[in-house]
This record gives sequence, C-alpha cells and structure tokens, in this order.
Amino acid sequence: MLGAAVKKELVRILGNENVSFLREDLIAYSYDATAVAYPPDCVVFPSNAEEVSGVLKLAAREVFPVVPRGAGTGFTGGSLAVRAGVVMSFERMAGIKEIDASNLTAEVEPGVITGDFQDEVEAMGLFYPPDPTSVKVSTIGGNIAECAGGPRAIKYGVTRDYVLGLEVVLPTGELVFTGGKKTLKGVAGYDLTRLIVGSEGTLGVVTKAHLKLLPLPQAKKTMLARFSDIETAFAAVEAIIGEKVIPSTLEIIDDVTLDCMGETVIGRGGAALIIEVDGWREAVEKEGSIIRGLLSGAMEFRIAADKNEVKDIWNVRRSISPALSKIKPTKLNEDVVVPRGALVSFIKGVRDISKKRAVIIACFGHAGDGNIHVNVMVDKNDPVEFRNGTLAVEDIFSLAVGLGGTISGEHGVGITKAPYLGMELSADTIAVMKKIKDALDPAGILNPGKIFRESSPAPG
Amino acid sequence: MLGAAVKKELVRILGNENVSFLREDLIAYSYDATAVAYPPDCVVFPSNAEEVSGVLKLAAREVFPVVPRGAGTGFTGGSLAVRAGVVMSFERMAGIKEIDASNLTAEVEPGVITGDFQDEVEAMGLFYPPDPTSVKVSTIGGNIAECAGGPRAIKYGVTRDYVLGLEVVLPTGELVFTGGKKTLKGVAGYDLTRLIVGSEGTLGVVTKAHLKLLPLPQAKKTMLARFSDIETAFAAVEAIIGEKVIPSTLEIIDDVTLDCMGETVIGRGGAALIIEVDGWREAVEKEGSIIRGLLSGAMEFRIAADKNEVKDIWNVRRSISPALSKIKPTKLNEDVVVPRGALVSFIKGVRDISKKRAVIIACFGHAGDGNIHVNVMVDKNDPVEFRNGTLAVEDIFSLAVGLGGTISGEHGVGITKAPYLGMELSADTIAVMKKIKDALDPAGILNPGKIFRESSPAPG
Repeated sequence: MLGAAVKKELVRILGNENVSFLREDLIAYSYDATAVAYPPDCVVFPSNAEEVSGVLKLAAREVFPVVPRGAGTGFTGGSLAVRAGVVMSFERMAGIKEIDASNLTAEVEPGVITGDFQDEVEAMGLFYPPDPTSVKVSTIGGNIAECAGGPRAIKYGVTRDYVLGLEVVLPTGELVFTGGKKTLKGVAGYDLTRLIVGSEGTLGVVTKAHLKLLPLPQAKKTMLARFSDIETAFAAVEAIIGEKVIPSTLEIIDDVTLDCMGETVIGRGGAALIIEVDGWREAVEKEGSIIRGLLSGAMEFRIAADKNEVKDIWNVRRSISPALSKIKPTKLNEDVVVPRGALVSFIKGVRDISKKRAVIIACFGHAGDGNIHVNVMVDKNDPVEFRNGTLAVEDIFSLAVGLGGTISGEHGVGITKAPYLGMELSADTIAVMKKIKDALDPAGILNPGKIFRESSPAPG
Repeated sequence: MLGAAVKKELVRILGNENVSFLREDLIAYSYDATAVAYPPDCVVFPSNAEEVSGVLKLAAREVFPVVPRGAGTGFTGGSLAVRAGVVMSFERMAGIKEIDASNLTAEVEPGVITGDFQDEVEAMGLFYPPDPTSVKVSTIGGNIAECAGGPRAIKYGVTRDYVLGLEVVLPTGELVFTGGKKTLKGVAGYDLTRLIVGSEGTLGVVTKAHLKLLPLPQAKKTMLARFSDIETAFAAVEAIIGEKVIPSTLEIIDDVTLDCMGETVIGRGGAALIIEVDGWREAVEKEGSIIRGLLSGAMEFRIAADKNEVKDIWNVRRSISPALSKIKPTKLNEDVVVPRGALVSFIKGVRDISKKRAVIIACFGHAGDGNIHVNVMVDKNDPVEFRNGTLAVEDIFSLAVGLGGTISGEHGVGITKAPYLGMELSADTIAVMKKIKDALDPAGILNPGKIFRESSPAPG
C-alpha cells in the first residue's frame, strides 16, 4: 500500500488527471494475456520522460514497485503488478516523433501501437519488419521490453535488430540515452541498448525509441502448402532453406490446430505451411518458382492469386488462438524454440508428452526459425487436467532445452516462466543477470518479481 | 609485477610450454595497431576454457590484470597490457568446431582467423558477412570483443548481428553460457550475449562462439564510379538508397586519398565510390541497372568485367592505409559515424578542421552507413604538428557527435578514445556502464584501463 504522502507526491509529479486510485482503473490495469490479475495500488499516465523520472526517483526513495505497461498483451505476466505498487501506462506517450526516409530511421514514444507505426512507415514506402501477432494492439515499448518477434523474424530478425538507440529512465531515476539516433553502427562503451531490449521492464523504462527502417520490399508472394503429415512439412522447410531461399515467413500449422479451425481456405488434415517471399519482383518470382518446384510433392500447393486470398489466409492464421478454445477453455501457450534441424524430434516428443499427460496439444508457429507455439489445452477448473497440463508444459520445456533450444523465443520469462529459467540457464548465468539487476536497481523497485524465481503473493 | 607464487601457479594451470616470461615474447605481445607498446609481465596460451577460468580465478584472488588478445590488429589499444600483468593469447584455441549447413550456424573458438572461417563457410555455399579490413589477420574473438564491422555492414550488419551465443569466462572465473547455440530467437533473461559483444574484453573472456550464417548470395556485381567532388558522390549514395537499393558495399574514397594512391584502376581526382550488390542473379542485374541509371552523371562509371578487375579494385581499397604513409608517417585514424544524411555537412566540417589545424586529412570508408575513416596525417616527431593533429581529432569527434553521430563505429574505445567518451555519453550513462563493470569484475582484473578514462602509466 502506498502511504498518503507518496500518493500526494505522485499527484504533484503527474497532475491529478494523470494519477488514478479508482477501483475500476486498478482492475482494468491488473490483467494481461496470462489471465491472472494483480491489481496495483495506483495507475499513472506520464506525458514525458521527466514525469517518469520523477516517479522512479520517488519509488527508489520510498521503495514501492513501479511496473511499466504497454498494451497488456504479454503472455508471461511482464506487465502485472505482482507486488502491487504503481502501474505506469504509456497511453499519453504515444507519438510518432519523426520518420526520416533519408536516413531510414524513426523516433517514437513507447506507447505507439506497433501496427499503427507500420502503417505510417509503409505509406512512405518504408518498412518496420517486427510483427508480433499482437501487432494491431501491442506497443513499441512493450515490444522492446519483451524483444518481440513474429513470423517475419526468420528473414528480418526481431525487435532487437531494429532498435538503434533508446532514451531510458533508470530505476534510480536518471534519464540516459543509449546507442545512436540515426546511425547503424556504434561501439562507444557497452551495448546498453540491447541490454534494455528484452529486459522486460526490469532495468529501465523506455521513454523514447530510435528505430531502424528498411525500404519496403517491392513485391511479395504468399503461398500455401498442405502436407500429409507434419514431418513432411518440416522436410519441406529444410528443403527450402537448403536451396538458399530465406522466406520472409515460414509458418506451420499442425493437424490438431487445422482440425479445430474447421473448413477454411487452408483446408483440413495433415499440416500446412504458409510461405511468403518478398523483395524485388524478379527475386520474388525466382524464389516462388524454386519453392513451387520443391513442394511439387505436397498434397496441395497454391500461390495466393490476389490480396483478398492473402488476407483470407492470414485471417485464418490470426484466428488460431481464439479458435483453439473450442478444444478446451484454458490454453497453456508456450513459445519454445528448437534448432530448425530438430523440429521433427521435437514434434515427436510433443506427441509423446501429449499421450503421457493425457492432454491435447496444438502446435503452430514460426517453423522457419524453429519457434513453435505449443498450446497445451486444458480446463483450469478441472484440477487433475490442469495439473497434467502444467506437467506437460514442464516436459515441453525440458524437451526443448534438451534439443538445444530455449524456453522462450519471444514471449519473455515474466512470472509464468520464472520457475523454469534454471532449466535453461546455469545458476552462474542467472547470478550474473541478478548482479546487473542489483547494480542498476539497488532498491529493487522496477518491475519486481519478474524473470527471477522469487516468491510472489497469489493473484488477487 | 607478478610474484613467484603467481608465476608458479600460472605454470601449474597451463603447463610450462604455455606460459612465457621471455623478454622477446613480452615485447612481441606488447603492441597492437596503435603503435604504442605496453609489455606485459607474462603471456599465456590457454588451450581450453578451464585453463582460462583457472587464470581468471587466480587473477581475481591475487589481483593482477589479465588482457585477452586476438591478433593485435586493434586501432584503439584494446589488447594492450596498459597495467602489465598477463596477456592471454588465443593461438591455441583456434578451431572451427562445427559448420552446420542445415541450421546455418557455426561453432568456433576465439582464436580462429575470421578470413579463414569465411573461406571455410563459403566453400560450403554459406556466408559469414562481417568483414573488417583486418579480416585476413584478425580473429573472431577480437572481432567479438570490438564488435567489428566492415564494408558489408550497410546491408548485413556487424559482428553483433551474427553472434547467437557465447561461452564466456567471467572476470570472477565462472564459465557461463549466454544466448543460443543453433537458435536465432531467445529471450530467456537478459541479453548477456550482446553485452559481451563490443565490451572490449572487459566483462568476460570468450572461449567459444556460436555464429549465425547465411546462404552465400548467388551473384555479385562490383561497380566503380568517380565523381568531380565528394558532395556529388554523397548525393549518389543518397540517390541509391532513395531508390530502395541497399548495396552490400558502398565505399567512398576522397580526393586526398585518391591523389596519394597515384595511378590505379580507380583513377585520380574527385571522389570514388565502390559499389557492390549481391543476391539472386536477377536481383543483382536489377540493382545494377538501377545504379547505372542513377549514376549516369558520374565522371566515370564502370562495372567490373571479371573477377580480376574486382580483385584489382579491392586491392587498391585495401592498400589505402599503407599508402597514406606517403603523406606523413603518423596516421591518426578515427572511425567516426554520422547519419548518412549528414555526410556532406561532415565533410565540410572536416575540411574546415584541416585548414584550422593545418593538417592533411584523408577520408575514406563506409559511406553507406555513414562510417567514415578519417585519417589525420602528421609526423609524431614534429611536436607542433602532432599536437595540431590531436586537436584536429578532438575537433572531428566533436563535429561527429554534434551531427548526431558517434566517436567510434567499429574500432572501439580502448585507451585512445577513452578520454573522449564523455563527449558522446553523459556522466550518468558512463556511470551505468561502470556499475556493470564493477558488478561483474569487482577486483577490476579484466583488461583494466580500457573504455573508461583512468590514469594509465606511460607506454613502456
């Protein structure tokens, strides 16, 4: 609980209209996509870096938690106020400050919705590739905190690869700048920019981001292939990369998922690949014909005829998550990564786990970079099934790490994966991370209880 | 000076044949490309991570400096033993452990020469893009420590973008693993991998690197253009990017440099661009014809007819550094970066500095990403001229930072740029970096005296 003096000081820093203690606000800002709720004591809406700095200085002095929050679409609880305190929301810092077509850079505030930003730059013939599925809702600040990826990561990389520099308020309140504004290269001191990216709001609060843009590719081709089984689909993925084609998207959908979708443009049964290539028209034609040749043995192969068909295909892909709830109401959604060459072993292991734990598991995701979204479908009101589901998740993490993979490709650790971090990282590696956290946030006020396993109170 | 007990313990850890106290070795390992010398007390040649760990544990306990060293080609003193102690050289850890064509990854030891590694992967139809000019001599370990770039950075990025994971010995001796081995994505905890990359050997000693590879582009086209003046050449750079062509190389050579080279395949006077595009044959043809169209106003434009002509062009480019010594014996070689759009202002500023300080300044480098190698030519035995040269360097840093650039694009800070770090970074930003250094290296034994301004003894 915040004391009266702290509350008063928050109002002084931000203005009355930018601080809320209203119960409805506290509830509205207590959720993210993990579907557990931790109401904060207060929600603040800063308008500039100075206000952010003021709040953090106060928090460091009076020792209360501050939890930065984008759109609350995270899957691992990164924006949850697990120890109450202040949720800091960025609705009022959502400006696109500059799009510089000459230097191929942009300057944005953290609250900008990534999809809106993409639309703006694409209208100028430019391109910001990172495309988490939440792109229409999630913010650049949240994407930076989690190092968001998406289907295009195989060719274009993830958020980390597009952040040139950051304006950051440290947990001790100082406003610092890291990296460059309009320069691609820079090695003056440690790479604080990439230390902040993916640090899940625990090392600093981003108040401005300088982003790298690319020229918008001239052409794109969307292809759909369906195979008798997922092993054949993974073999096709290998064959495509083996022929030196790096598609901009190489998405897989397994049979469980396809069955659940019913009759769609993608079809039912077996496993499907959505493949996109982009670039110069001539290169797109070439890559398209190479892929068509390689996939001649597929049950079905087609090139989307027009924009509407492309849209239909992606609408199906985007509706997977909600559709899965037909199987069971609770989705334990994990985003493990394995080396691409280990995908067949991985999927075999997932099937074994499904049998052993008697739970349905639906897989889809980014086959091109081995980042599979594994959805263990359970009913959380059925304690036995829920327990089996949780054990299945543990098995899946263990499988992925055993195959040389990671427990999280793009969702982060937050609270949901914190108990499993030690499966992937050694105690010494985690100790280094904690040393950095302690060095930058000695009072432990910035987004506490995340990443590292610590006892947290039960959701409220 | 190392005590007798420490010397004995070093021999016990590494074996007699892997530790040298011989004067000739101490001298041989006292230099890098900065041409100042700091002889260490001892040179060690570890064969594995355990030996590296043993040395660092001893150093942390007995408090003596350890300076990791690749090939000693650095321009900023990163591998110099400025406080004596132990130089750790990686000749005996120079194996290419694996090249995995299926996952497009490789595992190498730090002492591998980058050019040798590139040759190996290219023979397999694969591609490791980072290409510092020192590539035939410098090592992967050194490239990682400095986050080396090169001409291809404009399209392909720098060393940072190709490091998937690292085996690292911490300054306290623990062996940790960061990042992934064969996976592109991963957000489990902080991005320690990129914290180590570019940390100039001050935060950890890399004992193994897992690298990302690309398919080798099918085709490449090398073009040479010469313009009446450098402003026109920069306008051409802008025009090329403006037409959405991102060449793999966009190198500039100014008139001072061209004059100094004499009669070469590039020609004399004005300013030259070396432009390369790569990719699918069809894409290369397209980009080549776009560029040819854009540069129709150049004094001279030609497409290299064959491999020999390409080789001739690059031989000229690579011989710039030695050739410049014809102007003056001492080259103060800085690698500032400015936003591409500020190149014209930058070069004007450099000319003004050249006049004001009465020194010749030769510029060449990576115009595509604004990373210009600015060479202030002086005679270090002429104290007035040398002083003017040093002041010119300061002016150049100030100019670059004022234009929104950086004091170092790829050479690092080391000892030569340490006094100027504060021109680019605020005291608070530097303080964060130092906190991280202190947290990871409380005894201050790993490559001390680098990056941060501290008093160092005079070269010996």
